[in-house]
Amino acid sequence: QGFVSVLQNNSYDRYANNSRSLLYEEWASYCVFYKYQPIGLIRKYFGEKIGLYFAWLGVYTQMLIPASIIGVIVFLYGCATVDDNIPSMEICDSRNNITMCPLCDHACSYWKLVTACGTARASHLFDNPATVIFSIFMALWAVLFMEHWKRRQMRLNYIWDLTGFGEEEQDHYRAEYELQVTKKRMKQERSNTKITVTFAIVFGVILYRISIRAALHMSSYPAARANIRATVKTTAAIINLIIIIVLDEIYGAIARWLTTLEVPKTDKSFEERLIFKTFILKFVNAFTPIVYLAFFRGRLVGRPGNYLYVVGSYRMEECAHAGCLMELCIQLCITMLGKQLIQNNLFEIGIPKLKKLLRKRKSELDSKQEEELNETLQRYEKDHFLGPFVGLNPEYMEMIIQFGMVTLFVASFPLAPLFALLNNIIEIRLDAKKFVKDLRRPIAAKAKDIGIWYNLLRGLSKAAVIVNAFVISFTSDFIPRLVYQYVYSPDGSLHGFVNHTLSYFNVSDFQPGTDPLEPMHLGYKVEICRYKDYREPPWSSTPYELSKEFWAILAARLVFVIVFQNVVMLMSDFVDWLIPDIPKDISLQIHKEKILMVEVFMKEEQNKRCAAQDNRSSPSSTNQSPLQPRSRPVSHANC
Amino acid sequence: QGFVSVLQNNSYDRYANNSRSLLYEEWASYCVFYKYQPIGLIRKYFGEKIGLYFAWLGVYTQMLIPASIIGVIVFLYGCATVDDNIPSMEICDSRNNITMCPLCDHACSYWKLVTACGTARASHLFDNPATVIFSIFMALWAVLFMEHWKRRQMRLNYIWDLTGFGEEEQDHYRAEYELQVTKKRMKQERSNTKITVTFAIVFGVILYRISIRAALHMSSYPAARANIRATVKTTAAIINLIIIIVLDEIYGAIARWLTTLEVPKTDKSFEERLIFKTFILKFVNAFTPIVYLAFFRGRLVGRPGNYLYVVGSYRMEECAHAGCLMELCIQLCITMLGKQLIQNNLFEIGIPKLKKLLRKRKSELDSKQEEELNETLQRYEKDHFLGPFVGLNPEYMEMIIQFGMVTLFVASFPLAPLFALLNNIIEIRLDAKKFVKDLRRPIAAKAKDIGIWYNLLRGLSKAAVIVNAFVISFTSDFIPRLVYQYVYSPDGSLHGFVNHTLSYFNVSDFQPGTDPLEPMHLGYKVEICRYKDYREPPWSSTPYELSKEFWAILAARLVFVIVFQNVVMLMSDFVDWLIPDIPKDISLQIHKEKILMVEVFMKEEQNKRCAAQDNRSSPSSTNQSPLQPRSRPVSHANC
Repeated sequence: QGFVSVLQNNSYDRYANNSRSLLYEEWASYCVFYKYQPIGLIRKYFGEKIGLYFAWLGVYTQMLIPASIIGVIVFLYGCATVDDNIPSMEICDSRNNITMCPLCDHACSYWKLVTACGTARASHLFDNPATVIFSIFMALWAVLFMEHWKRRQMRLNYIWDLTGFGEEEQDHYRAEYELQVTKKRMKQERSNTKITVTFAIVFGVILYRISIRAALHMSSYPAARANIRATVKTTAAIINLIIIIVLDEIYGAIARWLTTLEVPKTDKSFEERLIFKTFILKFVNAFTPIVYLAFFRGRLVGRPGNYLYVVGSYRMEECAHAGCLMELCIQLCITMLGKQLIQNNLFEIGIPKLKKLLRKRKSELDSKQEEELNETLQRYEKDHFLGPFVGLNPEYMEMIIQFGMVTLFVASFPLAPLFALLNNIIEIRLDAKKFVKDLRRPIAAKAKDIGIWYNLLRGLSKAAVIVNAFVISFTSDFIPRLVYQYVYSPDGSLHGFVNHTLSYFNVSDFQPGTDPLEPMHLGYKVEICRYKDYREPPWSSTPYELSKEFWAILAARLVFVIVFQNVVMLMSDFVDWLIPDIPKDISLQIHKEKILMVEVFMKEEQNKRCAAQDNRSSPSSTNQSPLQPRSRPVSHANC
Repeated sequence: QGFVSVLQNNSYDRYANNSRSLLYEEWASYCVFYKYQPIGLIRKYFGEKIGLYFAWLGVYTQMLIPASIIGVIVFLYGCATVDDNIPSMEICDSRNNITMCPLCDHACSYWKLVTACGTARASHLFDNPATVIFSIFMALWAVLFMEHWKRRQMRLNYIWDLTGFGEEEQDHYRAEYELQVTKKRMKQERSNTKITVTFAIVFGVILYRISIRAALHMSSYPAARANIRATVKTTAAIINLIIIIVLDEIYGAIARWLTTLEVPKTDKSFEERLIFKTFILKFVNAFTPIVYLAFFRGRLVGRPGNYLYVVGSYRMEECAHAGCLMELCIQLCITMLGKQLIQNNLFEIGIPKLKKLLRKRKSELDSKQEEELNETLQRYEKDHFLGPFVGLNPEYMEMIIQFGMVTLFVASFPLAPLFALLNNIIEIRLDAKKFVKDLRRPIAAKAKDIGIWYNLLRGLSKAAVIVNAFVISFTSDFIPRLVYQYVYSPDGSLHGFVNHTLSYFNVSDFQPGTDPLEPMHLGYKVEICRYKDYREPPWSSTPYELSKEFWAILAARLVFVIVFQNVVMLMSDFVDWLIPDIPKDISLQIHKEKILMVEVFMKEEQNKRCAAQDNRSSPSSTNQSPLQPRSRPVSHANC
């Protein structure tokens, strides 16, 4: 109790702190989650900058509703059609009796494809034609969201009277910069190397992360026996998550240190550079495992008899038969849920409370004295014990990473918008509580827009188009299925697709020492095993070379990427062009006011000329300010 | 002479018409082609709209200079390396003695590859690695041009005091619209079908054009014997050109008619719709033959023994061995030169003169009376005999089509910027002469920007990236050469590339009736002939099917398209973001003026308060307008 519950029993100073308690009741409560936020009140109490953040969060959450609905429909479509899916039916059909090549050297044995039945069926939930339509929808959704926000921002600018406000008016030189300028010689020598150092470090960190991740995945391999695969996958994803969260904190510090090295000129430029660097680092951190799973895992495996070995004798990881899409889904699901749960609950609720506790300890007051103080201290004195406001950047950053998850890999996980929506409904009220209850009232700052965050959002929604194109064409089996159906299938259906995706391998071609310990499988000797790839059979003139089908399907995949990217970009540009940036009523209003303003000026001028003509002095008529055009009575039509 | 030479002998009214005669001397003359245009003077005499057109034309022409220089260097690089080019050396080497399959059914005979030597060498001029770099450069050049223009426009806006000018202030309803609104019932019934009709007609015209062009190409085929190929190509290009020019005029009328059908609300919307439709039609008209040559010609030929026949028994046209790039070059060259020469000279100089002549005839005055009139008439009375001003749209349209030629197909014709530059240097002065001498002085119109033309330019420069990617990867032999060099070549060089691109055909597999009349060629019986394609040889298990090489090269081409498009787009966005839209000095100036303005208002307010406090009236101090902040003396610091 104590400081935490100051607002619960503060009926005595409710009227002294009216806005705040109103905000507490009408905004910072989970009970009002279905209501619009009182943006005007937030702006009044916290200033434009924080007001814009919550307005943006509101628009984003609102826009997530249709996306979630469509996402759930797509997922349900997947559920409904899972029994009609011919490829998974073929995998689950034990009559097909396909023997697969072992998944690791020596220790592993041959396995039956029918054991991959569960994964194949689950994969269909996320890998069906509806996903393609959904990712086109989500690309357009991102554009619509940006447009919707631009209009909302314009409206808020008008209502909050910011249309004439220039950002540069608040731009002051940083003290650190002025200090540096005095040491001019030193600076000039270093200024060129600085930027280089920054880039080198950022790049180095990225490389380091990728290699760590790859090593982690590889080392986890030998433990992965066929039947405990799912467990391993899940634990690997959780380990990833923990690494992500820990590194996130470290990277924040690195970004700050790098930006300080650069000595930017103004506070604004400092903030922008810091944000950009933090964004790059955190983004790479959050997305490396996902990108690895989506595009690299199982690509560079080699083939039976000629596997690719790295770091001594580690074989590169393979995917299950139905592609890496399922693992990508699990990773996305755990990252989104876990990151949100842990970061929200632990970091946003737990840490502030812990800090408050520590501060309380430091002040070395026993509870008696405290209660006494509580009675005697003024509201603003008590507020001093609350945590300081550290800026909006962590809040924005979290949301941008989430936006990335929702748009970038939506093709592989259509439930992402729903997860984001649920999180954000809580997030809004959580942030509200934090701002109202747990932090000192921040110094109000004016702002016309959300600044560099808008550019980052725009960049993400552009990147989303190409990433989704690659996920659909390379990670999912959409294109191979399509090609099989229209080119190779004897009857135009998907019957035989599974057989078509599997190449043949003669077990006598195993490299010495890599053949399985048990050459017998289920009682009979295996002579031919199958593996997922498009390669020539052992009896062709060029055994185990990539087959014509491989190249044809590769070409089809690439054509899909080009067509998808360009069609979606064209549609996005069209939507962008279709929706005007300024709402019609606002632009009309601005236009009207301009005309009124000119009219008033004209009147004023006329009055003055009249006054000069008549040689009479009328000081009362000049007493009104020309800055308030609407309050001016329009009466002195002609003199 | 007479009215044409009114300005040559008009020393008597030089001072009455000072701006115009100054413009005539300092601007509308070929002698000053190397000088900047007197934009301020143009704006003063013709108004902002025309001033902006010439400013834009000036910026465009200026930006063409570096593009031309690099283009010429790329061309010279092609010229310098033509003798080191291994593929053309191999084609020209008669020792290789490669017999090619006949180019038409029955009538044509076999031919030796060495006869294609000239074309192969010429192709290298435009199809070398430097072209790839040049097309990346041109994509960035287009972005730089747009940015440069935005900044110039901003500067002009500031100098011409247009920063506060809103476009919508001049937006009046069209009389035709108001007429239509009165016939409301009729309109409501038709409004939906109208747009549909418009789209249908536009689309129909496009389809009609494509089929006409295809038919024309096909019918010109039987005449094309190997040795008269170049002549046929050139005449075909000229015929194309004539069709383009004739249809251009017809399309202008169609676009106007379609837009009238739509009954747009305001003049501005009418103009924009008209421009957009005219642009689509004229653009399709100008680029159909080029697109056909670049992407369709020689693609759907079929193969020996199984040619693709259309419209009865016409075989689809093939390209020469070195690809269609050479023909594309000729077409681009003739279109650019011819369109510019004919449209400039004939339409822009000839027709106005012809019209003037006709008008003179109509007025039925003999030369005596005319000279008398010339003496007695006032300047403005004489000007009435000049042609009316028909708007800037034809001028802009011409330039946009040219911009399309320069950016869209620059990968296949690096001299395009040079041609455009030479044309524009003349064009500026030609337009200047026309505006000063041959047309009535237009009614000055205010404008803040170049309107829809900017969007069209932007669209073109975006389209240019993908079109160039396709030209490089599909029309040129760049990718096959690269793939051969790094994958198939035994020694890493291009030796053997020509042989690799040619498939084998067993002449006994010709369909009955399609084999050549002369089975003997140069004295020996041909058994195997070669054709340009990647297909299996007759002795393989699947004869004449597309080979693995075909699919691998196709995949490589597609990968190039994706990489090129995304890299260039990223670079363009980066350049766009790097260059601020408003020049630094202008934004500083605007900021300063804003502060001054606020200061003046504050002073004014203070003065008034002082006046009220002192109960004294000082009408002289309120006599100055607050709209002219800089002219205001800052003296009444405190009262």
